Amino acid sequence: MALSTQPYKGARDFYPEDKRLQKYMFGIWRTVVERYGYEEYDAPILEPLDIYLAKSGEEIVNEQTYNFVDRGGRQVVIRPEMTPTVSRMVAARRQQLAYPLRWYSIPNLWRYERPQRGRLREHWQLNVDVFGLSTVAAEVELISVVDDIFKAFGARPDMYRIKLNHRGLINYLLDDVLSLDETEQHSVSKLIDRMHKLERSAFISAIDAAITDAHKASGVTERILAILDSQTIDQLPADAQNHPAVADLRYVLEELRKTGVTNVEYDVTLMRGFDYYTGIVFEVADTDPENNRSMMGGGRYDGLVGLFGVEPVPTVGFGWGDVTLESFLSSHRLLPDLISTTDLYVALIGDVESAAQPIIKQLRQSLNVAVGAAGRKLGDQFKAAEKLGLTQVLIIGETEITSGSLKLKNLATSEELSLTVNEIIATKQ
Amino acid sequence: MALSTQPYKGARDFYPEDKRLQKYMFGIWRTVVERYGYEEYDAPILEPLDIYLAKSGEEIVNEQTYNFVDRGGRQVVIRPEMTPTVSRMVAARRQQLAYPLRWYSIPNLWRYERPQRGRLREHWQLNVDVFGLSTVAAEVELISVVDDIFKAFGARPDMYRIKLNHRGLINYLLDDVLSLDETEQHSVSKLIDRMHKLERSAFISAIDAAITDAHKASGVTERILAILDSQTIDQLPADAQNHPAVADLRYVLEELRKTGVTNVEYDVTLMRGFDYYTGIVFEVADTDPENNRSMMGGGRYDGLVGLFGVEPVPTVGFGWGDVTLESFLSSHRLLPDLISTTDLYVALIGDVESAAQPIIKQLRQSLNVAVGAAGRKLGDQFKAAEKLGLTQVLIIGETEITSGSLKLKNLATSEELSLTVNEIIATKQ
Repeated sequence: MALSTQPYKGARDFYPEDKRLQKYMFGIWRTVVERYGYEEYDAPILEPLDIYLAKSGEEIVNEQTYNFVDRGGRQVVIRPEMTPTVSRMVAARRQQLAYPLRWYSIPNLWRYERPQRGRLREHWQLNVDVFGLSTVAAEVELISVVDDIFKAFGARPDMYRIKLNHRGLINYLLDDVLSLDETEQHSVSKLIDRMHKLERSAFISAIDAAITDAHKASGVTERILAILDSQTIDQLPADAQNHPAVADLRYVLEELRKTGVTNVEYDVTLMRGFDYYTGIVFEVADTDPENNRSMMGGGRYDGLVGLFGVEPVPTVGFGWGDVTLESFLSSHRLLPDLISTTDLYVALIGDVESAAQPIIKQLRQSLNVAVGAAGRKLGDQFKAAEKLGLTQVLIIGETEITSGSLKLKNLATSEELSLTVNEIIATKQ
Repeated sequence: MALSTQPYKGARDFYPEDKRLQKYMFGIWRTVVERYGYEEYDAPILEPLDIYLAKSGEEIVNEQTYNFVDRGGRQVVIRPEMTPTVSRMVAARRQQLAYPLRWYSIPNLWRYERPQRGRLREHWQLNVDVFGLSTVAAEVELISVVDDIFKAFGARPDMYRIKLNHRGLINYLLDDVLSLDETEQHSVSKLIDRMHKLERSAFISAIDAAITDAHKASGVTERILAILDSQTIDQLPADAQNHPAVADLRYVLEELRKTGVTNVEYDVTLMRGFDYYTGIVFEVADTDPENNRSMMGGGRYDGLVGLFGVEPVPTVGFGWGDVTLESFLSSHRLLPDLISTTDLYVALIGDVESAAQPIIKQLRQSLNVAVGAAGRKLGDQFKAAEKLGLTQVLIIGETEITSGSLKLKNLATSEELSLTVNEIIATKQ
């Protein structure tokens, strides 16, 4: 029986045209983050299971990751995210590294889940982290990086919205202002995280069900809704206005607006999934109603490096997946036409494979040159060039080799120019 | 208990200085193969088990690969090599693709084995393949690519040796010339493959043990040794001289020498591990006696694409690992000094984080700029810059912001220059 030509379920093959797009996206990511002094690192795709168990429950790790036991009895995971890995690497050289430490990576990540639009089993994710800054200068810098990336992709501010919140402020509102107990806080947070996927009435019923009868009777549901209706920090309850997180949020918003970031706002409903965040969290959403999911996100997580037995290091970071980025660029028509890395296709007439080599070698001093199969019909060689997206073919036969005058044919117009090697190089460069 | 900071056994963390070296090596690989019109592709690191079973035994796959059963009951492998994957991808679009098809990739590959020098559990491997060429023009092209890569890394021809053989000729010699039966052929091939690791006497005894008593008595061992002592194709037995593989080998050697490849030779002992090769095989060895293992290799494998239920496609390809390349470059002192992608470090004096932003933003129009932590001592900010390998620091305080004249300090000489933003950009570019 013949083998299947399909890739593993929920994962992608990258044919050259797909790889071109990936290289374009990764190239912009790299250029912008390096402008801010971030340096690239990498790590093995396999990691010991322990580093995920420390911050997520065993159940989540077992259900949502690719994990197995190796023949040495070690529990191993195909990494689902990069944050535990980078924390491990920083911890390993805690004393030797220079702070603020600015690192980025574009790892391939795997999650075991049902494949669906915009969420495959694997993706590539830009991870950018700054270590060693305890002030919100770190958040200002990272959100500026994110905004600069959008601009470098040609996005206009009306295409995306940057949303901020603060874990400390969320906890203060739920705990001190609303006086919810721990169970209520947990359930209400999860509900707020899903709020935009629920009808208003369903959300209210769910809140009612998540709090105690006494709280329900005393109007806590209404007070939760009132807080969640705050459109700005100013609209938060008066007793929250003096919380230090509010000052931090105001500073970040103000600094970003000063540098021209207009589409950033406080969002009381922003929760972020990971438990390890300790301060400001942020996300970016596509304003296209067809694609209004979160595209990327991040925040402060001061506790992770310390799990590896060293002094903790304040950290702010974000992750940005290639699949959500591609959807964004595609729905806003920001994807450029990407062309082959090959500059020129050489078609050979007759048995000149060996005799044409000196010319081809000379062309390759300056150009990327693919050569057709000698002995195949000229028309077939033209078709091959067209399939590669190339518009011009250089024809070399015995006559051309003898005269040194080569024919450069435009495949769209059939126009032919007779040129020397140096003229061709000058034309194509 | 604190978590371990070690990476998974046999695998590597890439700190920024390691990643720089990787990017340098991958960059040269990409530049040269693209000169020949090869386009980059990629594929998932997980593959269905079947595609490896087809050409290797179940035992080998089970013992030497990372494989497991996913929760959907699928048998999955972390890919140990790229050849089955690329064959799968070509088969999936057999009709639509343009031939000759030139593809390359730099995948991360995993093998389950005891880690040792130059052989880890994972490595990155340049894979270059040309599909659709049945003539040895394909082999000439790929070996030229390999040679150009060595030259691009600064290697001299005396540092490495390119060795060629032909599977058809090997089979002809063992089967027709020596009249070995199938079992003998298999054992003798394996022994020849390990020949250079054995003492001459041990090798002879092993050959004696691998052939039948009748063959041993009739002097087959001596005839095998005589063939293996051939230094050139001319020295092969007269009845082998008319085999078509000999003409192919002669053509490839001649064409390569014409274009200036002097360190290429026929090697009767070259076997290559994989069973899927069908024609010419080649390898490159380091001439350094301290590091004389094979660095890379390849050959013709015309049968793999056809396993996926389509018409077979003639194919020649090679693989070249990053670990063996790095050993080569390092032992021949070909590794360049690689510097940070960051151009400039900004040290801040006093509470100027916000006020310095317009200057920093302007610098970032042209330069990659990292910023020190405001409020940290100037000396500490200098030390951080030095740890990053940067030699100059730009100092910005209130005076500098007011005057527009910034201090650029050389950390090695302590020399300071007063410059405007535009002068700094001009200096650093």
